[in-house]
Amino acid sequence: MEFSSKLLERAVNEMSQLPGIGKRTALRLVLHMLRQPKEQTVILSEALQAMRNDVKFCKSCYNISDQDLCEICASPNRNETIVCIVEDIKDVMAIENTSSFKGLYHVLGGKISPMDGIGPHDLNIESLVSKVKEGKINELIFALSSTMEGDTTNFYIYKQIQEYQIFTSTIARGISVGDELEYADEITLGRSIVNRIPFESSLKL
Amino acid sequence: MEFSSKLLERAVNEMSQLPGIGKRTALRLVLHMLRQPKEQTVILSEALQAMRNDVKFCKSCYNISDQDLCEICASPNRNETIVCIVEDIKDVMAIENTSSFKGLYHVLGGKISPMDGIGPHDLNIESLVSKVKEGKINELIFALSSTMEGDTTNFYIYKQIQEYQIFTSTIARGISVGDELEYADEITLGRSIVNRIPFESSLKL
Ligand SMILES: [Zn+2]
Ligand SMILES: [Zn+2]
Repeated sequence: MEFSSKLLERAVNEMSQLPGIGKRTALRLVLHMLRQPKEQTVILSEALQAMRNDVKFCKSCYNISDQDLCEICASPNRNETIVCIVEDIKDVMAIENTSSFKGLYHVLGGKISPMDGIGPHDLNIESLVSKVKEGKINELIFALSSTMEGDTTNFYIYKQIQEYQIFTSTIARGISVGDELEYADEITLGRSIVNRIPFESSLKL
Repeated sequence: MEFSSKLLERAVNEMSQLPGIGKRTALRLVLHMLRQPKEQTVILSEALQAMRNDVKFCKSCYNISDQDLCEICASPNRNETIVCIVEDIKDVMAIENTSSFKGLYHVLGGKISPMDGIGPHDLNIESLVSKVKEGKINELIFALSSTMEGDTTNFYIYKQIQEYQIFTSTIARGISVGDELEYADEITLGRSIVNRIPFESSLKL
């Protein structure tokens, strides 16, 4: 791509560092910004920097938060004895949108994936096991996407907490196997939480 | 979409102001930034702001430029008597990529589109007509995309400069009618410039 401006070239190059944004898309976005008032670019830049610098991760569940403890963990209206294990923040948002779950979450920050060099210690698993150990949890819901990595992660966690004999469940799969949780429609996802089944039963399927 | 962080929500909302970026895509991009070092977001923000604040438009052709006159207009190796009329900067880049054209450009900044409230006076047409009037141009190449708006714009300009009896041409349409110029492959686009035909002939097709 030939650029007649270094400033333009640099902006396009930086934008195209973002995942799924190729050079052409980056150029289209940047040229759009040029047609908008300057303040618009200032507002966008400041919003991104404030978010990147000041956002926190909840000390308890690792959800994204503006405080030390996220709104969900801090709420007196949530049942803290039921914890739903999810891969990332997008899944918390997807489940919250269904309004079908009143327990807490635990965000792992990914799935075990030897191919990508992600082992159990790269994820927020130890803190989850500690919570179980302390006897705070009655039920753990596994809500990872049902891919091989998801199943591996579920099973690894299950092995770690098995001795504490709490109730474990997985969300019902109205969602097709292999689908990402975040793209499921609200009704299917909501129903799959309400109809969750014991984790042990899911191993026999 | 339920956000557990106002900072995250604001960043997603601002990102989704960009064309073609929905809330879900914005969220994906913003969460990616969170996983990258903070400096990465600073670099992106600064590149966008520097571009937005300091980029100029060439005084002669309205191409994007870091100087008052763009590199193409300032170059002694370009034939300034042949001017290629394009819709926007992306088209200059697309044609430059083909290395088949050694004249200058004139960037209109859009097409006449009554539906979108864009009239001739919203585009850089007067300055083009002035150049023709001053006798600086031997040939004008119409290189707008061949949509109804493109044809209208071509014809409007043609009427304005007809009396000065310069040679006018349109790029050959190996490119399918209705296609945007910027998505054409280099070979087709390069060939269509080399094989340009007199504008009058194009009216009879
Ligand atoms: Zn929390
Ligand atoms: Zn120029």
